[in-house]
Amino acid sequence: MTLTVHAPDGVPEVVEGTDLAAVLVGLVDLVDGDVVVVTSKVVSKSEGRVRAGDRDGALAAETARVVARRGPTTIVRTHHGLTMAAAGIDASNVALGSIVLLPLDPDASARRLRERLHALTGRVVGVVVTDTAGRAWREGQTDIAIGAAGLTVAESFAGRVDAHGNELAVTAPAVADEIAGAAELAQGKLGGRPFAVLRGRADLVLPADEPGPGATALVRAEGGDLFGYGAREAVVRALRGAARDQAPFGAPVPPEELLAAVAAATCDRATGSVEEGVLVVRAAPDDAARVRPLLDPLAFAHGWVCTPVEPGSAVVARMRPSTP
Amino acid sequence: MTLTVHAPDGVPEVVEGTDLAAVLVGLVDLVDGDVVVVTSKVVSKSEGRVRAGDRDGALAAETARVVARRGPTTIVRTHHGLTMAAAGIDASNVALGSIVLLPLDPDASARRLRERLHALTGRVVGVVVTDTAGRAWREGQTDIAIGAAGLTVAESFAGRVDAHGNELAVTAPAVADEIAGAAELAQGKLGGRPFAVLRGRADLVLPADEPGPGATALVRAEGGDLFGYGAREAVVRALRGAARDQAPFGAPVPPEELLAAVAAATCDRATGSVEEGVLVVRAAPDDAARVRPLLDPLAFAHGWVCTPVEPGSAVVARMRPSTP
Repeated sequence: MTLTVHAPDGVPEVVEGTDLAAVLVGLVDLVDGDVVVVTSKVVSKSEGRVRAGDRDGALAAETARVVARRGPTTIVRTHHGLTMAAAGIDASNVALGSIVLLPLDPDASARRLRERLHALTGRVVGVVVTDTAGRAWREGQTDIAIGAAGLTVAESFAGRVDAHGNELAVTAPAVADEIAGAAELAQGKLGGRPFAVLRGRADLVLPADEPGPGATALVRAEGGDLFGYGAREAVVRALRGAARDQAPFGAPVPPEELLAAVAAATCDRATGSVEEGVLVVRAAPDDAARVRPLLDPLAFAHGWVCTPVEPGSAVVARMRPSTP
Repeated sequence: MTLTVHAPDGVPEVVEGTDLAAVLVGLVDLVDGDVVVVTSKVVSKSEGRVRAGDRDGALAAETARVVARRGPTTIVRTHHGLTMAAAGIDASNVALGSIVLLPLDPDASARRLRERLHALTGRVVGVVVTDTAGRAWREGQTDIAIGAAGLTVAESFAGRVDAHGNELAVTAPAVADEIAGAAELAQGKLGGRPFAVLRGRADLVLPADEPGPGATALVRAEGGDLFGYGAREAVVRALRGAARDQAPFGAPVPPEELLAAVAAATCDRATGSVEEGVLVVRAAPDDAARVRPLLDPLAFAHGWVCTPVEPGSAVVARMRPSTP
């Protein structure tokens, strides 16, 4: 199988109101099944998302919640559900003293571009809107899909088996993100090539009347991720125990899982048993004072909550699943 | 700019001792500046890394430390420094009842393949060894570079400015990962195409005598990442406070940063001041008992440690940076 990725030169400066589809059509002959990739930067510029100011000043309005902080770095979850440093606010390739906010609804931007390309050319293409994002655990950034239209964004092999009979249940290549990265290799950061066209995966392109799931489908739901907070932020939030901070830790775990966490955190000084859905935690009298303060943050981080117990009892806490 | 990604059909089953370079050379005419991409699966098979057994049984030996757990999912840091579910142990595209471990040293595997390709063809190419990995915050998986040779794995724009005069200091596209993802689009998961050749980015390929930094350069150092533990795991580890668990939280923060965390976690019930590098934490007498147990895990997560104070003092703790 052979793919091509073509990023055309000669794109003029994009300003509010620029017809991106018309620009691209003037530079590339599209065919059915092409995937058109465009940076969110020029989508934002065409949609009037340029603001005077700096990134720090604009951060709060773009932030749904803070995920992690260290020194000058703030990683937040945006209103789109994207987890990004500085909420994806961009201060490069824009006039000095200005910033570019992400498109308000990148999937809608992708749909509009797809429809306009269809109107201009009659071609049925997929569209990906990209942004440059850092990753946990790895240096550097890759481009990812923050908007998509007319495209299968993740292949699914659920129920498929390989040639050896092994199930491929959990394998779901996030092809929209791989397309975004492939496009970046041709676009570069300094060449003025905000468009790319990937040809050769027409199987991923949906019929003209199907917008598809959009890149939103690649965003893991709040609470569904194991890394909803940075490691330090998680500790601070669990110790504080404010109800509004609990959801990013995820839904209540099964009691056995919480029991294992209690044993680990207390170095086995506390034991517990499950009694009618309530986790009853006990400790030796000498250990109770040391164990008890650990249980509130532990319960909090596992989607549970401690309820009061009678003083002087061998029971140091009763825990029940939190029901926000 | 135009790139092509070609994944040849017709690759025979790879077994221990298979000469991967000879297989590829029989299928593709390489040119100088090509980037050859190969899945870690066939590299491992050729290197005899297939084992009888299941993933759970092999996990401990491949694990440097556990990063996060939830239900049946265990995400670990491998001895290579890769953060992956099940340590990258693969149970697909292998005989039922067998598993494939990652190559012992994927950068070395890439260097050997590069040298062998050069010996067979005289061509100077880059090599990327890939694996399929999940990501924080996003659904699905992408292929990433776990080994590389003769390749610039991350472009650097440090000190460069864009056409508007904005510095691009932190922009470092992880091109080796983007190449891995682009290759996956052509390889697929079920087509028996473990090789791909990316043509058009010869600027990333190093001279024959330069192996380059390898994909190891894309691994963020232990303690350098904000997500060294999953959110729940971070809470459990901080509450337990075992010295060996502290490094993944990172180096000691500046005292002002810890002070802000103390204020946040205690809902401003504790205040502090920095006195000769020691953080002195005070609280009202009524609050001291509630505040004190929070300070050990807080200090721990920020690379600090609490030292004993005289009982009955308004000082509830003195903290100093941890020096492991």
